[in-house]
Amino acid sequence: MVVGELVQECDVIVIGGGPGGYNAAIRAAQLGRSVVIIEKEKLGGVCLHSGCIPSKVLAAAAAQLHMIGNSALFGIRTGETEFDLAELTNHKNKVVNQLHAGVAALCKDNKIEIVHGSAYFLPGDRIAVENGDHYEVFQYRNAIIATGSTPVIPEVIPYDGERIFTGRSITSIQIVPEKLLVYGSDYIALETAVSFKQFGADVTIILEERKHDFSFDASINRELKRILKKNGIKVIKDVALQNVTVENAKVKIILQTEKETLDLQGSHLCISLASKPNLEELGLDRIGVEMEGDGYVNIDEQCRTSKSNVFAIGDVTAGPALAVKAIKQGKTAAETIAGQAAEIDLNLLPMIVHTIPPIAAAGLTEADAITEGYEIVTSQFPLAANGYAVIHDQRAGFVKVIFDKKNDILLGVHIFGFGAVELISAGTIAMEMAARDEDLIFPHYPHPSVNEALLEAVEAIKGNAIHLAPPQRKDKVKS
Amino acid sequence: MVVGELVQECDVIVIGGGPGGYNAAIRAAQLGRSVVIIEKEKLGGVCLHSGCIPSKVLAAAAAQLHMIGNSALFGIRTGETEFDLAELTNHKNKVVNQLHAGVAALCKDNKIEIVHGSAYFLPGDRIAVENGDHYEVFQYRNAIIATGSTPVIPEVIPYDGERIFTGRSITSIQIVPEKLLVYGSDYIALETAVSFKQFGADVTIILEERKHDFSFDASINRELKRILKKNGIKVIKDVALQNVTVENAKVKIILQTEKETLDLQGSHLCISLASKPNLEELGLDRIGVEMEGDGYVNIDEQCRTSKSNVFAIGDVTAGPALAVKAIKQGKTAAETIAGQAAEIDLNLLPMIVHTIPPIAAAGLTEADAITEGYEIVTSQFPLAANGYAVIHDQRAGFVKVIFDKKNDILLGVHIFGFGAVELISAGTIAMEMAARDEDLIFPHYPHPSVNEALLEAVEAIKGNAIHLAPPQRKDKVKS
Repeated sequence: MVVGELVQECDVIVIGGGPGGYNAAIRAAQLGRSVVIIEKEKLGGVCLHSGCIPSKVLAAAAAQLHMIGNSALFGIRTGETEFDLAELTNHKNKVVNQLHAGVAALCKDNKIEIVHGSAYFLPGDRIAVENGDHYEVFQYRNAIIATGSTPVIPEVIPYDGERIFTGRSITSIQIVPEKLLVYGSDYIALETAVSFKQFGADVTIILEERKHDFSFDASINRELKRILKKNGIKVIKDVALQNVTVENAKVKIILQTEKETLDLQGSHLCISLASKPNLEELGLDRIGVEMEGDGYVNIDEQCRTSKSNVFAIGDVTAGPALAVKAIKQGKTAAETIAGQAAEIDLNLLPMIVHTIPPIAAAGLTEADAITEGYEIVTSQFPLAANGYAVIHDQRAGFVKVIFDKKNDILLGVHIFGFGAVELISAGTIAMEMAARDEDLIFPHYPHPSVNEALLEAVEAIKGNAIHLAPPQRKDKVKS
Repeated sequence: MVVGELVQECDVIVIGGGPGGYNAAIRAAQLGRSVVIIEKEKLGGVCLHSGCIPSKVLAAAAAQLHMIGNSALFGIRTGETEFDLAELTNHKNKVVNQLHAGVAALCKDNKIEIVHGSAYFLPGDRIAVENGDHYEVFQYRNAIIATGSTPVIPEVIPYDGERIFTGRSITSIQIVPEKLLVYGSDYIALETAVSFKQFGADVTIILEERKHDFSFDASINRELKRILKKNGIKVIKDVALQNVTVENAKVKIILQTEKETLDLQGSHLCISLASKPNLEELGLDRIGVEMEGDGYVNIDEQCRTSKSNVFAIGDVTAGPALAVKAIKQGKTAAETIAGQAAEIDLNLLPMIVHTIPPIAAAGLTEADAITEGYEIVTSQFPLAANGYAVIHDQRAGFVKVIFDKKNDILLGVHIFGFGAVELISAGTIAMEMAARDEDLIFPHYPHPSVNEALLEAVEAIKGNAIHLAPPQRKDKVKS
């Protein structure tokens, strides 16, 4: 320590105020700890300012536009519909500002100190924070690394934030692209493609790195391609990206197929690939925090790193870069620090895609279950055979369930369709409680509701779905 | 038996082809039984033709209209919005016809014989069916009574189906009433009121028989009255109906308050009160089936009546007249007949109301839990503090949970708001599995989603909701 250096002490320092970080900080404060959050930019992080929240505002508008396009069926005449991205941006900014103010207020209410600046570890359980010419040092009992990640942009792509965007920066685009190329296949790529298609863009999705298909359960992949095609979104697969240039307000892409070279041109390009952990500035090597081979911080089930009083959560740890993971890890780290018996199981993370209709899945895919050595039985109930979906004219999609054949325990739930986002929690709670088929068959399901499709998917495992014709063909509808 | 009378034999006769009846019939057929359904009118029953399904078509249109009214916020400009009930009726008829054809096809596929006519029991395990001058006799191994119920219309009300409707007949009304009076307080009364208000009617709800409030959990009742008032639906309580007349195309109602007489006038009146079992023509006394004091068929947990090979399901049995009850009872009766160990628990029937936003509840209300002697803890998380609800500008409502204080077991879930219908199944499955608070806290909830409000309601029980300010005031929002 430098002589005369003023060191502030606290129980828990959280580096990064995104959803993982602020959930960790508030939970630690709830459990009586004094907490400091160090935030370089804005509380709420990428999720609140350019990720989950803004992208869901776009998706909400897209879903409404889609619904309005179908409202004549319900006796509703609306006249010509126009979409104004600037007005939506106004709503988005209000939502973000309100939620940002909410997080700040919650931190204040929980007596969490917010320090703005860049943090790096010093020896002796200390963290330095720099902000311009301001410099502070904190002494911590425990630290939580929650610095998030940065989108990977291939060297061949001349990212500029004007014609070429990431899944994050495109949430602030000020015009609807005339022709949007989306490079990637994850939920962000899909939500971007579907939202902007609904706003009027011509959209092409290019699966990255010679990928042949999307990465969901095979049944979802199949239905997804059908729906994208039906909605006029093109999908290009099995190609390698060779070159990208921006010329005359156009993005030009050269793709290499197995046989030939393919030229594509768009007004804009959005990239959504992997993201890499934000760890470089932290000086983790100085304090002996071990890394995994692939650049993530090595943690145990309590999110503890190799240094026992330093924890890591969210995108800096292995696994999907999802806020839901970061939030749960943040709570787990805080509870562990507070001496509670906490643990996290990432096997049942729900994966949501706000396409139209949405996708929600949790647990194992059919392929993963087989790879992991399970003997499985699966079944699929089409929403076209569900009365509530027919009422709402939302017949696309299905509920698919995967059970362990040996003990009838639920291993996976994959929902594509109307109501999927809310319904998935019935699946995650059932799986966490190791539900057997009978545990899902015994409860009552509201009638009419899309929930009944979950029941009938489970009933179909043993050939007992009421609304599937016998013999029960798993993905055929008979009504 | 009359000499020469031709008697057809079958394993199971189901009297009534509503949702309870056809679910029972199909399940019995799935389990290898030969099945006959006797239906007086149309397969699908009241639920399909004038109840659940048509009313949900109206509710779906109302919800869309409501949403369109708010779509400017999302950058969507529509011209003047007009609503045409005739076009909606067209959609409704298509939905009903499609689902009706679906049920008929499923019955055919399951080799279920449909016999049209009125049934009554004969001695010797026989049932006679009359249809005009056609007469048939069936010999059954087991019979299931699923004849449903008829709305109760007080004598003082001159029901005509033109100015005065029931909750069923109003689903076929051909104009939007100018001024609709709704007499009743159940889910049908509420859905009717909210849908027609959205279609442009002036709506007043009159709580029946000196009722002082709605019958949901007190927190729901309170929020419901606030939302009805906000949406311009008047509620009149603490009154007795004295007289109803139809004159000059007006319905005139005289109500008696504690102190005075109140005159009301509307263009139309809709009544939704109790319903009485359709049992009179069946001749149950001839075969010794015992009744409960209040006119319902007395059944056990397998839906078996006092006559061991005769079962009864749905509205002819005690408990709420809900399709969800009839469906589960139908399956239970069929499985019992087929020799399976089946049982039904009506305690966790979900109650759904398709208001705007919807209500979904299951398990005990706070008041019921106290009456039943539980020592409880409750908490309530407001949707205004849920990011996903803010994104969608759907801030009204909350998730309320009720736990047994002694063992932390979930006793009740009451959701009022966006996503309630789909989300309630997380609650019913959790309750059926006797979930404790930790079983609901351990799983992951998608972010952002309204599902997180369920998690935070449970976390708030022990003061640990992240998005409620400390000290956690149960129904205050701080964001």
